[in-house]
Amino acid sequence: MNPYPSKLLENAVSELAKLPGIGRKTALRLALHLLKQDVSEVEAFGKAVIKLRNEIIYCRDCHNISDSEMCAICSSTKRDHAIVCVVENIRDVMAIENTSQFSGVYHVLGGIISPMDGIGPDELNIEDLVNRVSSGTLSEVILALPTTIEGDTTNFYIFKRLKEFDIRVSTIARGISIGDELEYTDEITLGRSILNRTPYENQLNSK
Amino acid sequence: MNPYPSKLLENAVSELAKLPGIGRKTALRLALHLLKQDVSEVEAFGKAVIKLRNEIIYCRDCHNISDSEMCAICSSTKRDHAIVCVVENIRDVMAIENTSQFSGVYHVLGGIISPMDGIGPDELNIEDLVNRVSSGTLSEVILALPTTIEGDTTNFYIFKRLKEFDIRVSTIARGISIGDELEYTDEITLGRSILNRTPYENQLNSK
Repeated sequence: MNPYPSKLLENAVSELAKLPGIGRKTALRLALHLLKQDVSEVEAFGKAVIKLRNEIIYCRDCHNISDSEMCAICSSTKRDHAIVCVVENIRDVMAIENTSQFSGVYHVLGGIISPMDGIGPDELNIEDLVNRVSSGTLSEVILALPTTIEGDTTNFYIFKRLKEFDIRVSTIARGISIGDELEYTDEITLGRSILNRTPYENQLNSK
Repeated sequence: MNPYPSKLLENAVSELAKLPGIGRKTALRLALHLLKQDVSEVEAFGKAVIKLRNEIIYCRDCHNISDSEMCAICSSTKRDHAIVCVVENIRDVMAIENTSQFSGVYHVLGGIISPMDGIGPDELNIEDLVNRVSSGTLSEVILALPTTIEGDTTNFYIFKRLKEFDIRVSTIARGISIGDELEYTDEITLGRSILNRTPYENQLNSK
């Protein structure tokens, strides 16, 4: 027997349960919560989600999401447009922006190379990155991709594609997190952090 | 600085973060997930939620949610309309229906008496329950409310209101859950389960 007392409820639960990390029990809780809200609030909720999907624009330069043809970062005159930080997705842009340590611009790949998931270089905004570099206005590309096999593969692929251009390609520093104990750090990270040791003066300067 | 690259995104995140148990980080993850879906899917999602709130009907007899004026349970001829099970909310109806052990009908209170939250008897569908009982067609009211102070208070209030009528009022059995060990059961539940012991034949019959 169908446990839902209403088709409308069943439908709403099915839709909510499609969200990642939300099962049918949680979806039911959310649906019953929405039922208790004012009509206007639920309409605002539903419309905000539809509007997001229908009206979102991707920045023509960096592919970050934006409200206009060019995002706020790419159109800012305060940013250094010669330094491009390559990230996997929009969340990474927000994470780096939160640090207030980067004044360049971004390039959002929209994913990383992952043959297992059927994602090759053509599915990502890599060709566009090569075009940006070939324009000759950039001085450095910073690769800020995850430290996974897929991230390393993508790093290497981009590095090869940019080899022909006269541009500096760097990756963000890998090492021991601030506040972490040496003895609990995995040996690969610890080993890399010794190989890639930085002059003490650099650390003084960054304070 | 505003960390959101787009007003549309910020708005959708704010709306999603209003859902219970969903913080801004999860809301962002959900919003970015929705951005990757087809326009038609996101529209179906938003519309299902709005439609649920706008078109839902509460059964005029039991106050369960329904697609018509009378819910499927109240309009079924296979149910015993003389036995009414009083529950706090719609989820409890679904939980009891899942057991397939109850063939009567329901009465959804829409909450329980909780002075701390400003919920008194007038905020609940109690008057309506009294009216159902006063019609004289019912033989038994089963109280299936939570075993909390609020649940006990509501049980007692309903019991007092129904005292003047010639009707049996019972509560669902409290005792040790099936599969539970005696030694780990709290003393109040264990004490009650001894006081409210049931004849062994009853257990044989229920198998």
